[in-house]
Amino acid sequence: MAVVGFVGLGSMGSGIVGRLLAAGRRVVGYNRTRTKAQPLVDAGMEWRDTPRAVAEAADVVCTMVRDTEALHAVTAGPNGILAGLGPGKVYIDMSTVSPAASKELAARVAERGARMLDAPVSGSTVTVREGKLSFMVGGDRATCEAVTPVLLDIGPRVTYVGGHGQGALMKIATNLNLAVQMLAFSEGLLLAEKGGIPRQAAAEVLLNSAIASPMLRYRGPFVLKDPDEVLFDVAMMQKDMLLALEMGRTLDVPLPTTAVANEFLTATRSMGLGHKDFAAMVQALARLAGLPR
Amino acid sequence: MAVVGFVGLGSMGSGIVGRLLAAGRRVVGYNRTRTKAQPLVDAGMEWRDTPRAVAEAADVVCTMVRDTEALHAVTAGPNGILAGLGPGKVYIDMSTVSPAASKELAARVAERGARMLDAPVSGSTVTVREGKLSFMVGGDRATCEAVTPVLLDIGPRVTYVGGHGQGALMKIATNLNLAVQMLAFSEGLLLAEKGGIPRQAAAEVLLNSAIASPMLRYRGPFVLKDPDEVLFDVAMMQKDMLLALEMGRTLDVPLPTTAVANEFLTATRSMGLGHKDFAAMVQALARLAGLPR
Amino acid sequence: MAVVGFVGLGSMGSGIVGRLLAAGRRVVGYNRTRTKAQPLVDAGMEWRDTPRAVAEAADVVCTMVRDTEALHAVTAGPNGILAGLGPGKVYIDMSTVSPAASKELAARVAERGARMLDAPVSGSTVTVREGKLSFMVGGDRATCEAVTPVLLDIGPRVTYVGGHGQGALMKIATNLNLAVQMLAFSEGLLLAEKGGIPRQAAAEVLLNSAIASPMLRYRGPFVLKDPDEVLFDVAMMQKDMLLALEMGRTLDVPLPTTAVANEFLTATRSMGLGHKDFAAMVQALARLAGLPR
Amino acid sequence: MAVVGFVGLGSMGSGIVGRLLAAGRRVVGYNRTRTKAQPLVDAGMEWRDTPRAVAEAADVVCTMVRDTEALHAVTAGPNGILAGLGPGKVYIDMSTVSPAASKELAARVAERGARMLDAPVSGSTVTVREGKLSFMVGGDRATCEAVTPVLLDIGPRVTYVGGHGQGALMKIATNLNLAVQMLAFSEGLLLAEKGGIPRQAAAEVLLNSAIASPMLRYRGPFVLKDPDEVLFDVAMMQKDMLLALEMGRTLDVPLPTTAVANEFLTATRSMGLGHKDFAAMVQALARLAGLPR
Repeated sequence: MAVVGFVGLGSMGSGIVGRLLAAGRRVVGYNRTRTKAQPLVDAGMEWRDTPRAVAEAADVVCTMVRDTEALHAVTAGPNGILAGLGPGKVYIDMSTVSPAASKELAARVAERGARMLDAPVSGSTVTVREGKLSFMVGGDRATCEAVTPVLLDIGPRVTYVGGHGQGALMKIATNLNLAVQMLAFSEGLLLAEKGGIPRQAAAEVLLNSAIASPMLRYRGPFVLKDPDEVLFDVAMMQKDMLLALEMGRTLDVPLPTTAVANEFLTATRSMGLGHKDFAAMVQALARLAGLPR
Repeated sequence: MAVVGFVGLGSMGSGIVGRLLAAGRRVVGYNRTRTKAQPLVDAGMEWRDTPRAVAEAADVVCTMVRDTEALHAVTAGPNGILAGLGPGKVYIDMSTVSPAASKELAARVAERGARMLDAPVSGSTVTVREGKLSFMVGGDRATCEAVTPVLLDIGPRVTYVGGHGQGALMKIATNLNLAVQMLAFSEGLLLAEKGGIPRQAAAEVLLNSAIASPMLRYRGPFVLKDPDEVLFDVAMMQKDMLLALEMGRTLDVPLPTTAVANEFLTATRSMGLGHKDFAAMVQALARLAGLPR
Repeated sequence: MAVVGFVGLGSMGSGIVGRLLAAGRRVVGYNRTRTKAQPLVDAGMEWRDTPRAVAEAADVVCTMVRDTEALHAVTAGPNGILAGLGPGKVYIDMSTVSPAASKELAARVAERGARMLDAPVSGSTVTVREGKLSFMVGGDRATCEAVTPVLLDIGPRVTYVGGHGQGALMKIATNLNLAVQMLAFSEGLLLAEKGGIPRQAAAEVLLNSAIASPMLRYRGPFVLKDPDEVLFDVAMMQKDMLLALEMGRTLDVPLPTTAVANEFLTATRSMGLGHKDFAAMVQALARLAGLPR
Repeated sequence: MAVVGFVGLGSMGSGIVGRLLAAGRRVVGYNRTRTKAQPLVDAGMEWRDTPRAVAEAADVVCTMVRDTEALHAVTAGPNGILAGLGPGKVYIDMSTVSPAASKELAARVAERGARMLDAPVSGSTVTVREGKLSFMVGGDRATCEAVTPVLLDIGPRVTYVGGHGQGALMKIATNLNLAVQMLAFSEGLLLAEKGGIPRQAAAEVLLNSAIASPMLRYRGPFVLKDPDEVLFDVAMMQKDMLLALEMGRTLDVPLPTTAVANEFLTATRSMGLGHKDFAAMVQALARLAGLPR
């Protein structure tokens, strides 16, 4: 059975490795901050000191990092993943990065004789724990099929969407909906509230109606009470919106609601809320509507 | 057990009456076009020749009509519901109309010694059939409680949101999300498509992701193939958006994505698609993006 | 020489009558509040006690009032202008009202055997004083030509744009630009300011650049210091935006920047600034940008 | 009298050098394509074979190029301007580039012992010819004052706005207004046209009203007839919008109308009109409104 390597053990990465270990996979891992990895080591994951060492020890190497810059940090250089790749190995990036960056990296992986897939995920750490994460995969179809058993140990749905970078594109196309849905939800909520319906009652109705996407059911309650843990903050959400807007310009697709929601993310940051869950967008709109928050 | 009257037997009204009959309720009904009511008569509904006669025969009278104008047509005049109301009777309007119109009607109902609730629903004819319709109710709380058993025969969730017109407001606040979610979905879909991912594959990923609200799961497939039956067309969707924008101005709540989505509904109508399901918004965006449809 | 009647002697109306008197015209006038008319009476205008009396005394009757409701108040009823009109008379409405209301009024004027023009103006009280007001005229072309000498005594440019209501439409199509230009100006101004350029210096550059429309040159300085007199407040500006959005829906023309600017007018009202000059829009944007005002 | 060097002799650069020669200045120049420079050489400009040679020969060196990339091409490397700079020389960049790029270049100029100003201009080639170009200058105030006589030979207004990059910021803050004003103008124009007013008549009214900025008076007629020469195309306009949106995010200033207008520039490009004057935005809106163009 294939040895799986994993670099990037934040909340998402840790959850995924947990699933792999639970499925009986042998996993070798690395994280910039070692302490965060300790619970996984306790659960059976083998530690390696560099991304390169992970790649050398594994048949299938995965990364899950914050952005393009972080991806560069773990793949390039003498201790990077690229240096540890070789023929027969498959490298899967699960991060959300620009399709262009993903394509470029795939070319460098190919130079090493290995194959790359971009396989971003749909879902949060909650989804991971529930075993419901889904993958949108770009790259070579045969490679996708080869690693599908590994991915199915993590979540139930693997959709092959096209060549290198197409997984990344599909993820971006999905995520632009998050901020727009959140802003529209805020519009409805504050309209109801300013019309005299208590925010809690309004939220309850909205979250039990036909507009209640899984994302809204998870995140909607944050407009009443800040979450205990912030998994996807305003700054991260805006990173994805900027990737969407950039792709829209590259592909000549106008994105009107994406563009408007992005400006409200900027407004939310201007209130010093960049590190709050992006449900904080409601506060920017509340300010415009003359409401307390 | 209370006799229920029902005026307005379109697809939603018929579905609701079907639920009431199935629950063993005695129902008297009226519709502008009698032929549409025949299946219900066959199923046990008693026909009356005017809205007034329905109100006279029933303890609880309900209406479900297209807009404020249609509501006026069935409530006013010598044959209207108002003329048939009196002390002890409850009148429930389930239509989506402006909160102001609803309040005004409630005052006229009170003049007849009866009580009114505005109780618009969340859900489509599919939701009705599945017994999952939910109600957001405005008016007097005691009156709401009195008729709750009737409403629970239709669907499982009755939320009291406040005084007269608040049910209508809550419905409008919910519905603005429909058009915005549809437009954002279209943005993601066309971005993926123009980037080389087949529309069907892109739709599949989106509709299995965290953004897939019940509305999108129902309506998303229409971007691939027109629905057999149009339940909520562009013109009806825009009617609700205009109510939302009007309430936004009345209550001083800016509605940025609502305003943008509304302009795309206008664009959709300019293509002659006013009578298509409002998923046709994707075609206005596709035109802007230089895509075939 | 034709006797000119004038109803509605606010700041715009007074300025226009002043021009007519200066040109040697005989003018009879009426205003809801007589005291405001006194300076004009001192300058030679003849007072009449009702709009009807003005219409009876004049060959050409003009109105300049705030909105459709005010227009109804001075035209309808036993003391209204309509009652004083008859064959050979021309009635010119210079207000900004909906094209539909203007067409309907034209039909009623025709019933009296008189002819109507809708002739809204472009410009402010400053423009009137400088003799630079321009007219966009809807109605019958021959009627327009017949009264052109009167209009040219007020301002230098009379453009015939089409049948009844077309002058009103053209005015609305012009005015939507006002709020959009003001909001875009605010975006540039606050971008510069938050980047460290003093607001005054930034305003100076903007108001001497290629984007400086006459409206911005007049109104731009209000972002530094409130004007002494408010001639066109947020509420009036929004009235025109709503007329534009309504026409856009009627004619199936999407108006994306109009829709966005309108929401910022709503936001400005939510700050309690509805009676300020509409340059106050900058304050809604400043609030969103986390700036003092 | 200071010798002026000029690199980048496109339509704007040529116009500026023409003004300097007319004012009796000694000018040395370079352009990537020499043939374009011939008329200026005929008029007295001295040719140099590299940007470096221009910098070596001049006291004050200016650049006017298309974008950040082109700026890099003429400043960096062994033949670049930087290599030719030294103590006592002043380098003025008149291009529209990002404030960050401008600041960075200023640091490299300082390393050579020279001083840099960013001094973008407001106006078109027409403005240059009329001697009405204005400058917004960032950098050291004393340096700005030192070269002001040179700038005044080109146009009448030099506004010092702050440190390095502030001229660039001010230019971007100005230019975002261009696309927004053009889109709002299109909204008004098409609203009038679809309501039955011929486009030419509508344009005439708009361009003689209070909204007619110098930019609109110049560019508005292009909605009736393509210009003979395209000076500022859709792609260049979008470049500036992207710089504005990027600055908005950096400085936390939401730019709602800028964001919307930018999406319509994308739509215009999707119609294959990227190389038309940006007045072509009207065609994207016309398409959405179901109008021929």
